[in-house]
Amino acid sequence: MEPEQQFTSIQDIGEFGLIGHLRGVLGEPEDDSILAGISDDAAVYRVDDERVHVLTTDAMIEGIHFDRTFMPMEHLGFKAISINVSDIVAMNAEPRYATVTMGVPQQVPVEALGQLYEGVKQACRAYDMTVVGGDTTAAHQFTLSVTVVGAAQEDAIVYRSGAQPGDVLCVTGDLGASFAGLKALVENREMLQEKGEENFQPNLDRFNYVIQRHLAPPAQLKAIRDWAAHDLTPNALIDISDGLASEVNHICEASGVGALVHSDKLPLAQETMDAAQHFGEDVDVFALFGGEDYELLFALPEEKLDMLSDLPPDAFFVVGRVTEKDEGVLIEQPSGETVPLRPGGFDHFRPGEANGGGRA
Amino acid sequence: MEPEQQFTSIQDIGEFGLIGHLRGVLGEPEDDSILAGISDDAAVYRVDDERVHVLTTDAMIEGIHFDRTFMPMEHLGFKAISINVSDIVAMNAEPRYATVTMGVPQQVPVEALGQLYEGVKQACRAYDMTVVGGDTTAAHQFTLSVTVVGAAQEDAIVYRSGAQPGDVLCVTGDLGASFAGLKALVENREMLQEKGEENFQPNLDRFNYVIQRHLAPPAQLKAIRDWAAHDLTPNALIDISDGLASEVNHICEASGVGALVHSDKLPLAQETMDAAQHFGEDVDVFALFGGEDYELLFALPEEKLDMLSDLPPDAFFVVGRVTEKDEGVLIEQPSGETVPLRPGGFDHFRPGEANGGGRA
Repeated sequence: MEPEQQFTSIQDIGEFGLIGHLRGVLGEPEDDSILAGISDDAAVYRVDDERVHVLTTDAMIEGIHFDRTFMPMEHLGFKAISINVSDIVAMNAEPRYATVTMGVPQQVPVEALGQLYEGVKQACRAYDMTVVGGDTTAAHQFTLSVTVVGAAQEDAIVYRSGAQPGDVLCVTGDLGASFAGLKALVENREMLQEKGEENFQPNLDRFNYVIQRHLAPPAQLKAIRDWAAHDLTPNALIDISDGLASEVNHICEASGVGALVHSDKLPLAQETMDAAQHFGEDVDVFALFGGEDYELLFALPEEKLDMLSDLPPDAFFVVGRVTEKDEGVLIEQPSGETVPLRPGGFDHFRPGEANGGGRA
Repeated sequence: MEPEQQFTSIQDIGEFGLIGHLRGVLGEPEDDSILAGISDDAAVYRVDDERVHVLTTDAMIEGIHFDRTFMPMEHLGFKAISINVSDIVAMNAEPRYATVTMGVPQQVPVEALGQLYEGVKQACRAYDMTVVGGDTTAAHQFTLSVTVVGAAQEDAIVYRSGAQPGDVLCVTGDLGASFAGLKALVENREMLQEKGEENFQPNLDRFNYVIQRHLAPPAQLKAIRDWAAHDLTPNALIDISDGLASEVNHICEASGVGALVHSDKLPLAQETMDAAQHFGEDVDVFALFGGEDYELLFALPEEKLDMLSDLPPDAFFVVGRVTEKDEGVLIEQPSGETVPLRPGGFDHFRPGEANGGGRA
């Protein structure tokens, strides 16, 4: 009798462990038109002597990434495009073409899908891009999978791996709002369930901004266009989808550097601070680990900051500095103490560890 | 009080009705680099003065497109790539890059996903292409969504819309085998459930070929390479994913022509005929409405058949002829009688009408 085979659960190795394992099965690409594969926000391949295309795909699954009870269909369509465009602009490329694949439960009416496509259309207008195809099929669970092709000059592409010790680390906007918005929506739903529709008067106005940031986050296409207009190319670039802490670690790992982030420099909206107070939580945890901000994190030599001096003061915020690898990835706390900044971003396969957990 | 809103169910308008509705929401593409959008097997856009890329996406959802109880993971990976490559070659283009998005239930072990990726890798080798990215997330229902980018010279691209009256209609291989294989697998599972594992000795050897055609269908990349080697470009081209009847109607609608298919010319494997007899069904129904053959259907001027005369006799089969639009889309039955050939392909939103149903 053969010994029983031991199986490994995905939870044991986590999402990034799984991706690493599957990359190992595939091996390294042999096609030399491919400049970047699974290692960055989007794949990069040459289309001629000077230009490249970038390719990314991101899925949204009901019950995992969104809740139809508080996610309007139009916002869902907008967000599904936004989160993919965010990966394209995180390579410093312009989005061009998209495909939209939907798995749709029987009870979803055609009108709801029409609304979803209104959101897709709005996003395509906002980002100067076009839906060119897709696949629509029946499913038990509502599933939305979007692929976006972007375009850029080869020398404009910015990878995660180019950060240099001494660079400043910047973000394009305030952090933690999306997570605050999600918490407000979940609280609202729980109170509705508890008190019943007749006795409950929702009061979501004070959370307007953070809810909007959760439901319909814009991709930061404007930021990369501002850089292009100023002839600026950052050294390293990534979008903030899993929380700032996770993304700083991604850049440090890919670039072989360390980093020091200052917690008192994290840009925070007043409403995000109010929401954190309302929930009795530390707003820095929202900003570092909350995820789904879809702002950009970039590294550039400090002397190049001058090139952006005519931008409005909220166009970007310096949050820290790139250091030597052996200094590690650190955060300076308000007390002045520096501690390791662990990734701790959201892992859909390990939801219990999300949001402030900090994987050791 | 407002009148209650009337909702339209997807079943009411079907998959093609829904696609038409959603295309209407999006409107026509304004980007003139786009040569074909949602209307064909794959989207087509220019990358330089002479060359185009083609883009397609297709999802496979557990319980809808596959059954894990009889679909080995390696075959699932291979098939997910194949069905997308089939759409690329149906534009007369070569596949180049793929992304693989998976929604994975918690209980699926890492080893199973490794096997799936072995199948993906095999397919990539067979089709000279590379997986460059993807997204892996938790899900309640196993979902696999693949996107493939292909490349071609602009003048090599073949659309559905180019068929001319007088053209011969050809297919690249035998039809109906995949559906026969599916029926054999379903029967086997039912008998296993009925009799229990101890008392049931599966006898699937006689169905080897048709089961293989269902589980791991090859895309017909060799056919388009043969044409290129012979300087031949068909007038119209489509892959046979929903059954020959459906695809003939797609070409006729897009080209504004009619067609006459001869039922006695449908290429059938001996094992497919044996399977139809075993199940007491008409093998022509398998061939016309079965679906998932992933052969190619193409139209070309009769005089060009000579250009392919050195190919082996099973490289392609003439099954009919393109006629004037007002003659309609017809099939000549063995009795000599001609009757309308209705699409009747598989519609995942209307499973009750699948396979021989024939939508009026």
